[in-house]
Amino acid sequence: MPRRFVTDLGHQENIDQIFLASQKQLRPNRNGNLYLQVDLADRTGSISARMWNAQEADYRSFEDGDLVHVEGATQIYQGGLQLIATSICKARPDEVNLADFMSLTPADIDRLALRLSELLRSMQDLPLRNLAECFLTDDAFMERLAKSPAGIKNHHAYPGGLLEHVVNLMEVADSVAGHYPILNRDLLLMGVFLHDMGKVEELSSEHGFAYTDAGQLLGHVILAISMLDAKLAQAEELAGEPLPEETVLRLKHMIVSHHGEYEFGSPKLPMTLEAIALHQLDNLDAKLHNFQQLMRDDANMDSPWTQYHQNLGRKLFKGRVEAERVGGQK
Amino acid sequence: MPRRFVTDLGHQENIDQIFLASQKQLRPNRNGNLYLQVDLADRTGSISARMWNAQEADYRSFEDGDLVHVEGATQIYQGGLQLIATSICKARPDEVNLADFMSLTPADIDRLALRLSELLRSMQDLPLRNLAECFLTDDAFMERLAKSPAGIKNHHAYPGGLLEHVVNLMEVADSVAGHYPILNRDLLLMGVFLHDMGKVEELSSEHGFAYTDAGQLLGHVILAISMLDAKLAQAEELAGEPLPEETVLRLKHMIVSHHGEYEFGSPKLPMTLEAIALHQLDNLDAKLHNFQQLMRDDANMDSPWTQYHQNLGRKLFKGRVEAERVGGQK
Amino acid sequence: MPRRFVTDLGHQENIDQIFLASQKQLRPNRNGNLYLQVDLADRTGSISARMWNAQEADYRSFEDGDLVHVEGATQIYQGGLQLIATSICKARPDEVNLADFMSLTPADIDRLALRLSELLRSMQDLPLRNLAECFLTDDAFMERLAKSPAGIKNHHAYPGGLLEHVVNLMEVADSVAGHYPILNRDLLLMGVFLHDMGKVEELSSEHGFAYTDAGQLLGHVILAISMLDAKLAQAEELAGEPLPEETVLRLKHMIVSHHGEYEFGSPKLPMTLEAIALHQLDNLDAKLHNFQQLMRDDANMDSPWTQYHQNLGRKLFKGRVEAERVGGQK
Amino acid sequence: MPRRFVTDLGHQENIDQIFLASQKQLRPNRNGNLYLQVDLADRTGSISARMWNAQEADYRSFEDGDLVHVEGATQIYQGGLQLIATSICKARPDEVNLADFMSLTPADIDRLALRLSELLRSMQDLPLRNLAECFLTDDAFMERLAKSPAGIKNHHAYPGGLLEHVVNLMEVADSVAGHYPILNRDLLLMGVFLHDMGKVEELSSEHGFAYTDAGQLLGHVILAISMLDAKLAQAEELAGEPLPEETVLRLKHMIVSHHGEYEFGSPKLPMTLEAIALHQLDNLDAKLHNFQQLMRDDANMDSPWTQYHQNLGRKLFKGRVEAERVGGQK
Amino acid sequence: MPRRFVTDLGHQENIDQIFLASQKQLRPNRNGNLYLQVDLADRTGSISARMWNAQEADYRSFEDGDLVHVEGATQIYQGGLQLIATSICKARPDEVNLADFMSLTPADIDRLALRLSELLRSMQDLPLRNLAECFLTDDAFMERLAKSPAGIKNHHAYPGGLLEHVVNLMEVADSVAGHYPILNRDLLLMGVFLHDMGKVEELSSEHGFAYTDAGQLLGHVILAISMLDAKLAQAEELAGEPLPEETVLRLKHMIVSHHGEYEFGSPKLPMTLEAIALHQLDNLDAKLHNFQQLMRDDANMDSPWTQYHQNLGRKLFKGRVEAERVGGQK
Amino acid sequence: MPRRFVTDLGHQENIDQIFLASQKQLRPNRNGNLYLQVDLADRTGSISARMWNAQEADYRSFEDGDLVHVEGATQIYQGGLQLIATSICKARPDEVNLADFMSLTPADIDRLALRLSELLRSMQDLPLRNLAECFLTDDAFMERLAKSPAGIKNHHAYPGGLLEHVVNLMEVADSVAGHYPILNRDLLLMGVFLHDMGKVEELSSEHGFAYTDAGQLLGHVILAISMLDAKLAQAEELAGEPLPEETVLRLKHMIVSHHGEYEFGSPKLPMTLEAIALHQLDNLDAKLHNFQQLMRDDANMDSPWTQYHQNLGRKLFKGRVEAERVGGQK
Repeated sequence: MPRRFVTDLGHQENIDQIFLASQKQLRPNRNGNLYLQVDLADRTGSISARMWNAQEADYRSFEDGDLVHVEGATQIYQGGLQLIATSICKARPDEVNLADFMSLTPADIDRLALRLSELLRSMQDLPLRNLAECFLTDDAFMERLAKSPAGIKNHHAYPGGLLEHVVNLMEVADSVAGHYPILNRDLLLMGVFLHDMGKVEELSSEHGFAYTDAGQLLGHVILAISMLDAKLAQAEELAGEPLPEETVLRLKHMIVSHHGEYEFGSPKLPMTLEAIALHQLDNLDAKLHNFQQLMRDDANMDSPWTQYHQNLGRKLFKGRVEAERVGGQK
Repeated sequence: MPRRFVTDLGHQENIDQIFLASQKQLRPNRNGNLYLQVDLADRTGSISARMWNAQEADYRSFEDGDLVHVEGATQIYQGGLQLIATSICKARPDEVNLADFMSLTPADIDRLALRLSELLRSMQDLPLRNLAECFLTDDAFMERLAKSPAGIKNHHAYPGGLLEHVVNLMEVADSVAGHYPILNRDLLLMGVFLHDMGKVEELSSEHGFAYTDAGQLLGHVILAISMLDAKLAQAEELAGEPLPEETVLRLKHMIVSHHGEYEFGSPKLPMTLEAIALHQLDNLDAKLHNFQQLMRDDANMDSPWTQYHQNLGRKLFKGRVEAERVGGQK
Repeated sequence: MPRRFVTDLGHQENIDQIFLASQKQLRPNRNGNLYLQVDLADRTGSISARMWNAQEADYRSFEDGDLVHVEGATQIYQGGLQLIATSICKARPDEVNLADFMSLTPADIDRLALRLSELLRSMQDLPLRNLAECFLTDDAFMERLAKSPAGIKNHHAYPGGLLEHVVNLMEVADSVAGHYPILNRDLLLMGVFLHDMGKVEELSSEHGFAYTDAGQLLGHVILAISMLDAKLAQAEELAGEPLPEETVLRLKHMIVSHHGEYEFGSPKLPMTLEAIALHQLDNLDAKLHNFQQLMRDDANMDSPWTQYHQNLGRKLFKGRVEAERVGGQK
Repeated sequence: MPRRFVTDLGHQENIDQIFLASQKQLRPNRNGNLYLQVDLADRTGSISARMWNAQEADYRSFEDGDLVHVEGATQIYQGGLQLIATSICKARPDEVNLADFMSLTPADIDRLALRLSELLRSMQDLPLRNLAECFLTDDAFMERLAKSPAGIKNHHAYPGGLLEHVVNLMEVADSVAGHYPILNRDLLLMGVFLHDMGKVEELSSEHGFAYTDAGQLLGHVILAISMLDAKLAQAEELAGEPLPEETVLRLKHMIVSHHGEYEFGSPKLPMTLEAIALHQLDNLDAKLHNFQQLMRDDANMDSPWTQYHQNLGRKLFKGRVEAERVGGQK
Repeated sequence: MPRRFVTDLGHQENIDQIFLASQKQLRPNRNGNLYLQVDLADRTGSISARMWNAQEADYRSFEDGDLVHVEGATQIYQGGLQLIATSICKARPDEVNLADFMSLTPADIDRLALRLSELLRSMQDLPLRNLAECFLTDDAFMERLAKSPAGIKNHHAYPGGLLEHVVNLMEVADSVAGHYPILNRDLLLMGVFLHDMGKVEELSSEHGFAYTDAGQLLGHVILAISMLDAKLAQAEELAGEPLPEETVLRLKHMIVSHHGEYEFGSPKLPMTLEAIALHQLDNLDAKLHNFQQLMRDDANMDSPWTQYHQNLGRKLFKGRVEAERVGGQK
Repeated sequence: MPRRFVTDLGHQENIDQIFLASQKQLRPNRNGNLYLQVDLADRTGSISARMWNAQEADYRSFEDGDLVHVEGATQIYQGGLQLIATSICKARPDEVNLADFMSLTPADIDRLALRLSELLRSMQDLPLRNLAECFLTDDAFMERLAKSPAGIKNHHAYPGGLLEHVVNLMEVADSVAGHYPILNRDLLLMGVFLHDMGKVEELSSEHGFAYTDAGQLLGHVILAISMLDAKLAQAEELAGEPLPEETVLRLKHMIVSHHGEYEFGSPKLPMTLEAIALHQLDNLDAKLHNFQQLMRDDANMDSPWTQYHQNLGRKLFKGRVEAERVGGQK
């Protein structure tokens, strides 16, 4: 039977397949009986599952981050889909198709890494290119980058998500820079590359994604500065001279100001052209991914409107007519 | 003698050339003597001028919007450059080189109008293309558009500025849409075209730019809705059927929500993908133009920093080293 | 047995009477059993009802907007009253007393419509009176107005509610204008009449009240402008000349600015005396209705205090002593 | 020669008449020469005056609060009118027409005081009427009330202004209460009477109006509570029993919450119907007076628009056409 | 068996001991069966308890504020600990150890009262010392003070809590004043003593703690002013002359401004050195107690992080390593 | 003649003494004549000076940061004191008494440095003491620290100001920690020491104080992290093992969160007890210094009130009566 992906699941489907487990918890209900709650994911999304009358042994039988074989059925509960499991146990290697659990295949990741190096090596500024080289040739770094998500939840929350986010944003920045000649393309590209690098240390990707202590207490902006300091020292050794002081300040400033507003924890506001462009493009990208995801995952299946989103202060309009009615490529 | 453009003027230069006058005022100084104050512009910018010991006759000798011959000298006053005029009189046609006073030449405007029609006619959605045709073939409208500025002050505050802003933003939107397949390119292009159309009625371009009463009391968002209503009626006549209802709602919603936040007078928040993209791209464009202009016009000529801008809450960094030190194309 | 109205219901009352149904949903509980949830209303208010162990057939047996016969009992749940139904079925016409479900009787509505025309015809300004006539003699419009609620929830959320809100506010505006001679009474009356007209298209009153797509995407402010444009064209035809331009701008400005603050989605702030008066009086009316309703519907029956209302940031004081203790007419 | 009132003065008028002086200052100009600056008022408004090359003796020749004879001429300076005085000296009693300096004549004040007692004695609630009597029969209090302004600047900033504000607002409250039967008219009237009473101690009316130390450090809300406490003790003595506890709390709450929002220094938000009504009506009254005054005093005499008011975030529209064009009574 | 204090309780402990009951409620569950919900406290904290299938008789068998004997067991529910009771009945005097229910023993309270009088009597300013004496020798006041909590919830929510808060803050103020000679120690000490005095009337300590009507409608700031007024009259009688006017204003200003910001309902902002110091020290104390309590009571027992606290906008870091690893005295 | 210090200067004093020059500018007045503007300081404060009819040569005759001999006279201008200079020339070494220009004498600075080392060496935690030692024994660092101000303007804006601020705050923190045993004194002391260290690189102290480019673009929070990283590497070398990871995170977190609120550019909110204490104490110290300075420097010499301070939203009360009237030690 072909896999039913999470985003395709509907109400009252029988389930008998493999998922990636995370956030498992053993909890008593109001009558004091225990149940097991766990998030089950594949590469398309995740669903919350409950197994009633669970035992401590059920809880101990697998770990967060394991692939598990689940039997049960879906149901809609409080406007969202959940899965009532009758059995959850660790999957045997032979039942697993790894491609089901990776948003990005190893080939995707290789392609992205290749495109990253092409874009960085296309910079005309020599000191920046040398600095980029120090990152590209650091295998340990590139490996961690390839595994990092770009966030805990929502868009790009899968291994390689950070790489994908960075490469896509570099492509957009490259196009946009073509329309605004006042922008220094090299600085902008390098800034896009660096702006979220601290997430490699902010987020842990072992046994599901989570914030590290350093991530919570310091944040990826501060962490990226220390990472960049280390690479700058390397680049200086490599080139026999340090990067120009102003170039370094401009790069660090892009990292430090990319959240754009004090209220989002930005220690500085953008004060250079490339810094403001980086902030605005990052914002555009985040908004488009966020809207798309809320529309796609919305539980109001029959309605042209999503539910009300408190943090956005609005509902979103998914549309009434077939997409092809308006315009061609949607 | 070749013209000295406003943006090239420095401290204590002698002036003997033509400017475009606006905002003239006859004012008493603290000793009760009258002086004439007037803004003098060419296509590169404007400078405030004062003529001491002026008479009512001096004040009556020209109108706002006239080209005037000015003699005098520049000086720095309170951190900005001003011009102390010894003579201001209406220019003779033969001393005027019109190209000095137009940011956009007639040829530029023709080119922009042509590019506008190319972009609009490249839409694949037939009803949208029909609607666009109603605008493109309305000569009176196209003529007013070609004269309209995109604002009273700052970037695009010159005849054709609105057309230039709209065409440039359509180009950027077109590139960006290529990186986000979820965006409906046709809707986005048409939305960019329409979003600021109300400025044709919000701003008056007679005798210098100013807000009309309707502009102040209603604003360009409301005015654009009435303009679009009229064209939709025409398009229905043309096509024999109205535009699809949802298409109309999506277009109007883009107009109504393009300021993006309630605090900027947006009656609605963006609720569709194209509406959020329009808002974000308009914002990126405005920020880049604003930063560029503040850096270029800054009076702190020796400093790598602009003065502090209250409304931005920051200084901007113009840079210490030659631009060519960092990157190639700046 | 005389009807028990919703606002009179207490804990653990047996129910066997007719209600107006809306918002019906068939939902699984956490054990996967289905239950039916529906809002039941009469003219005094509404109560949420649940029928356990419901079937698809129960769900299909009536529609939102139907009058249904309900059996069951009330209980307090999480601080509010709910109804546990044992049976819900479509009511027979002969069991229904329509007056129980209309806050306003047809006679009330006729009286309000009559008062509306009296007030509008008492204006001394001829162009305004002509414009008013175009609305008053438009039977289709007057019929829709008579059916429209003034909101989805809370006060005036019943057919005729919009008419009632508008007429009441016109009465208050008329009195207040008497104390402030600087106010132009005619403009103020006409502005009150028009300010919420867009709700006729913003809210749908079929099968319960809901926002239309146009209502969500554009809002009643924008919709009212298009409605007024149409009537202005009619009035011009009628009178042989258009309304004075400034009168039109002042009317539109009152519509456009009546929410008073950008944060409430007002595209413009009030800039005329009548616009600020309209905003303030609308606000007073809304606050008084809101406070009254929260006090009347409060579930803390024994307490002199209502529960805490997050959006108001406070509890309200219903009072300890009998109302007649303080003052006479309460 | 009949008096030219301040609001009638234009550019370059010769002045030779009496004014009320306040805020006098002796200041050096940038060359170290001294000049005298002083505000000159009559009952219609005030104008800033300067006398160049003044001596210490000029400064000492009159006091703030004196009526002075001024010679000089007006001029527009930085968008506002000022008066350049050539002579300022204390006026002789025989040149003064006191009516020119009082917005309210003694007869006006008597009429207002009479209307105040009528309104308070029309309350049906006996304890409230007794309490009111304690204020009305306190001659010292009534005398201070008759002299108090309702503010330092702007509307009602003249002796009797507080009385006028309170009586007018009681009239409006009385009308509005007629349209909202849920409001307790007696409580509302008494609350309106008390809400600003603390201004009698917050503002000093000797030698021009100013805040007292107690006014600055405590504010009129706190001061009114102490004043009411004293009168409540008197009323208890008079009646042989205290006012009902809840009535007292409701009155104090109206005082304490009448600013309506924390950001305006309100220690509590309105929690009763009469408290919210008081806040809203006080607000309506303040806004109408403020708009009217800004339109009347605006220096842009030829423009239909006032200048931009930073604190309101807008310009106001004074109008283009004659008032009689629109409506009758304006 | 020694008592298990609330803060020591874990998951699934059997309970058979005495608690202080408050907030009892009889509620139906979704099946219409009744259960009893009640908060159970000892001096270390409180826990929510439920008794399933309760009767009206169970509900009536004890009152809020009673000490009750409870049998049952604990369980974790929705991230917090709750107690499922099988029996709740009024405790016999002989089973009660009062010290278990008082955060402060009578001896503690005596010690605090003694320290209060030492600190107040150490003031060098005679009028302030006289005023303090009026409070210290008012036995009724001192008794109420000794019983008052400093809040309804959280820190110092127990009899004597207000006294403890005030004395502790006086100690801190005393130390800090030593480092800032510009601070007037006497004024600061007296201000700390008075700032929260209104809580004696704002909070009722009968049958559990709750806001009084006066507390809700007026607040402790307003109430303290009336209390101080009474004592000032006494002090005047005692000393034969009133306190210096400025001293009184400074004291009242400290009360009136101690919340520091308008948004926290402060009618005035601190305008004197002692007022700003009082606000800042009160804030420091509140923040430290709040953080400490959230860390101590956090339900995430295994995690170095507390749960996310919406009102603080953050999680708190409890720490991973043993406290003694870092520094000595923790 | 003994020096007249800046804070002692009054209106119309003759001046003939040495000052520290900064911010010199040559500016044209409105008539095109040049004048020299410069700030003149001694250790008590600074005053703005103008020399009319200055020449380029006057401007070139000294540098910012030079000690200059000034002749002229003071005058009050626009509410503040200014100095009209008739002569400004570089001072001869023999006319200078260096102590007049240093808020802190070398002896003061030595005493502060000694106290710093005592406090740091009193920490019981060995790793923290080792880290402190790396700073204390770094002569170059200690020398820069001894020269750094704590800000550009206002309190502590003099060489050694940073050292003074840090030592004073450590003393306060030490006292306060004694009253809150839950605080880890060592962490808090070390955090206070480190929190503003980045100012050594944020502010330049050559030729007057100014922000460095790195200071503007990155800020002292980011700069301190890099400085601490370097010292942590040294401490690891010294001790043979790194500091415990959690200790490092806690220290960095204190630096990163010490501004306390996002709106002040804090990238993280305080999440530990010591971080919240540091923020609150730093705030208390800043507020007290700020209030004291505004009261001391206020130009309204005769008034008990300072002028209105826009950024504080209030006036401050300096007081009417002699300080000794209230309390003893003021």
